[in-house]
Amino acid sequence: MALSIESRCDAFLGGRVRAWQPVAGYRAGVDAVLLAAAVPARPGETALELGAGAGVASLCLASRVAGMVQTAVERDPGYAHLAGRNAAQNGVALEIVEADLAALPETVKARRFDHVMFNPPYFDRTRGSASPDVAREMAVGEETPIGIWVDVAARRLAPGGWLTVIHKAERMPELLGAIVARGGFGGAAVLPLAGRTGRPAGRVIVQARKGARAEARLLAPLVLHEGPVHETDAEDYTAEVSAILREGAALRRLL
Amino acid sequence: MALSIESRCDAFLGGRVRAWQPVAGYRAGVDAVLLAAAVPARPGETALELGAGAGVASLCLASRVAGMVQTAVERDPGYAHLAGRNAAQNGVALEIVEADLAALPETVKARRFDHVMFNPPYFDRTRGSASPDVAREMAVGEETPIGIWVDVAARRLAPGGWLTVIHKAERMPELLGAIVARGGFGGAAVLPLAGRTGRPAGRVIVQARKGARAEARLLAPLVLHEGPVHETDAEDYTAEVSAILREGAALRRLL
Repeated sequence: MALSIESRCDAFLGGRVRAWQPVAGYRAGVDAVLLAAAVPARPGETALELGAGAGVASLCLASRVAGMVQTAVERDPGYAHLAGRNAAQNGVALEIVEADLAALPETVKARRFDHVMFNPPYFDRTRGSASPDVAREMAVGEETPIGIWVDVAARRLAPGGWLTVIHKAERMPELLGAIVARGGFGGAAVLPLAGRTGRPAGRVIVQARKGARAEARLLAPLVLHEGPVHETDAEDYTAEVSAILREGAALRRLL
Repeated sequence: MALSIESRCDAFLGGRVRAWQPVAGYRAGVDAVLLAAAVPARPGETALELGAGAGVASLCLASRVAGMVQTAVERDPGYAHLAGRNAAQNGVALEIVEADLAALPETVKARRFDHVMFNPPYFDRTRGSASPDVAREMAVGEETPIGIWVDVAARRLAPGGWLTVIHKAERMPELLGAIVARGGFGGAAVLPLAGRTGRPAGRVIVQARKGARAEARLLAPLVLHEGPVHETDAEDYTAEVSAILREGAALRRLL
């Protein structure tokens, strides 16, 4: 993405976070907010976001939990630039590292974090048409296998540290398979995110603790929208989800 | 299990199936019935059950779908004997193969099946105390890794054949990881089974089709019991579950 690309400033958490994002290409939305809300961080802990894009999830986490010490890794120079601009605009001391997550600089590899979170690209280039925009491809092209994301997260987590991931529900088997294959994590908690009651999950949040011995859990779905259909133009988020998206509440179901 | 062990005759599907089971040791129940109800079989197709115990799931499938040609593999001689007795008592031409699933005889290895189902042992011997009853150990001791079950199923399935598994929810990551690692299956459909609305899943049914290219799906939970708590001694199964357990209905959610 060229640095001169057209961007727009979006509001998150009821305006507590404002972030510039490119008008075209990957744009953080509800997923990034839910991811940040699910991280079980306490004030002053350290957090690493992999594939941070314009930094929305990291900024949402910083807004909810005081005194976080956060690092965001993003390989695309344009997004990394936006993330830095967004951190400054929100008064957040977010360290931006422009790097491929599979080739982190020694300054990051020398550290362990209390939390690692990521929201991996959802686009599957084997099924869709390739984008002519290389930056968009990199943001959504998913060249990095999910096993690499999980392995990098495992290496960077401190003992007892928490991995939190949001992903498409259809990728849940690969994500859980990667966590099992990597080893070193306690049983994962899986939270299905369903658009409506009774519908299949569109997304899942998966959380696992390094070195823990807990059993895996499959939780009741978090339902995003009220009622069976979208009847008006008004927002129809459930109260629990609205509190997360508009008031910056934590997503406490996984604990 | 000695052949002289104390057994009891239990009724399933509102009495459509009656099966002798040992009073002590592994006893099939709701899980076996739900497993059979989830198999998407059509009349006259072939089915293989791995680790069949006393044959309850296979007999329930035979009761629901006409003209099935079914094989049940069970390594414990006592359970295999009971399965044969139960098949005869229910008038079902169920082939019983007394063998370890990891060492199937050539008569089975030479065949491919339209369906493979299993309900693997749930006991984890690394966490519980070992049973003094060797047969019980073999039934519940889970010596055979889940990856072996999945691999044997994959080998025995015809192209386009269906694998259907019921397992503890806490084993879902390992089960899905084994299916992903084995390869050759289309995206799995995962049905959480929750005791009550809003509760974590206790079991999952996972279904995958050999050679298919479908995306994985995480379905809305099937809720077993009505209401928030068990208020009386009466059965409080939801209507959908009661139709499966008491009237022999199919579990159609996975299709």
